Amino acid sequence: MAEQVRAIRTRQAILSAAAKIFEERGYQAATISEILTTAGVTKGALYFHFQSKEDLAQGVLAEQDQKLTVPDSAGKVQVLVDVVMLHAYRLQTDPMVRAGVRLTMDQLAQGLDRTGPFVRWSDIGVDLLEKAQAQGELLPHVLPRETAEVFVGSFAGIQSMSQAICEYQDLTVRVSALMRHLLPSFVVPSVLASLRLSETRGADVYAEARRASPDQEARLLVS
Amino acid sequence: MAEQVRAIRTRQAILSAAAKIFEERGYQAATISEILTTAGVTKGALYFHFQSKEDLAQGVLAEQDQKLTVPDSAGKVQVLVDVVMLHAYRLQTDPMVRAGVRLTMDQLAQGLDRTGPFVRWSDIGVDLLEKAQAQGELLPHVLPRETAEVFVGSFAGIQSMSQAICEYQDLTVRVSALMRHLLPSFVVPSVLASLRLSETRGADVYAEARRASPDQEARLLVS
Repeated sequence: MAEQVRAIRTRQAILSAAAKIFEERGYQAATISEILTTAGVTKGALYFHFQSKEDLAQGVLAEQDQKLTVPDSAGKVQVLVDVVMLHAYRLQTDPMVRAGVRLTMDQLAQGLDRTGPFVRWSDIGVDLLEKAQAQGELLPHVLPRETAEVFVGSFAGIQSMSQAICEYQDLTVRVSALMRHLLPSFVVPSVLASLRLSETRGADVYAEARRASPDQEARLLVS
Repeated sequence: MAEQVRAIRTRQAILSAAAKIFEERGYQAATISEILTTAGVTKGALYFHFQSKEDLAQGVLAEQDQKLTVPDSAGKVQVLVDVVMLHAYRLQTDPMVRAGVRLTMDQLAQGLDRTGPFVRWSDIGVDLLEKAQAQGELLPHVLPRETAEVFVGSFAGIQSMSQAICEYQDLTVRVSALMRHLLPSFVVPSVLASLRLSETRGADVYAEARRASPDQEARLLVS
């Protein structure tokens, strides 16, 4: 058991180092030997967990999928909003999430498949939108896959703009504005009227999620 | 006069080479000597036009501002849509525009001010939205600056997603979907009903602009 805990810690140390180096150098220029030095682990330990630079990058990319449980709501559109707002809040506050998103947006990372996060986030969106649709929260013309992909793509750009302009300081304000611009095109008015979309929603959801499961970090999927 | 033409050609050759190298290597790793070799010009010629690597990158970034004239319409929301759709079409077809956008999205380009395109595109959006507002095309609550920035940020992400997934092949389809998701939140219904938003709109606007000014390329501002 102690060994398992040690292995998890080593894996986390390697991922943190990889995140740092990818963020500083970009995917292309980063080297495994720099990551080794930063992590302070042996070559053997690193290759036990990750087989290549791409494998390390995929590990960092996957970290943004490890979502805290968003408190369930009767309204599934609210859950969708909460997932987005929580992600924005974590981008502001968690270096590992930030590194994953930067890798995703690294248009110069040749040979690295960056589609994973776009696809996985879209799948989460489709799932929530189909549930919302089943209980009458959406306007009749909505195609869940199309709307989910518009959501994911536009969020990706809003975070990039916020990072370029002010290193994420205004991210939650921008994401709140994005929500107000997208939702009226596919949510029925009565649902729209009761949504919580304020810029502090991400922090509120985070606090609530931590209260609900104080001893665990970030392993559960969105229900 | 012949000299002036030569100088413009040299400048273009240098910018094309810079675009190519920045796209291949990223901003960080690119060197002026590689750009020199690719452009096939002397060091003196390069430094006559550009003082530094950052200056070269700003030159590439500025190329995406050189818009073909979008045909004027009575409806200013349609002009806004046309500017966006034309930009999507040019991203699919013009390597220089693509290089500028990639630099803008290069979150690893330390020391390069990437805010320029975000700010300049937002300003164009504000201008068009204020005109649209003045003639009653917008819903009463709209703040042109906020809406323009949501537009620019979400477009940036949609193009990034399309590039990651299929090298821009589905870009115009995705941008058309984005328009249908954003516009209902700020455009009055009667205007909405008459907008041309199809995925071929960018190509149509491009063809129309070229017909209107067959002998000039890409120097005029949006009216």
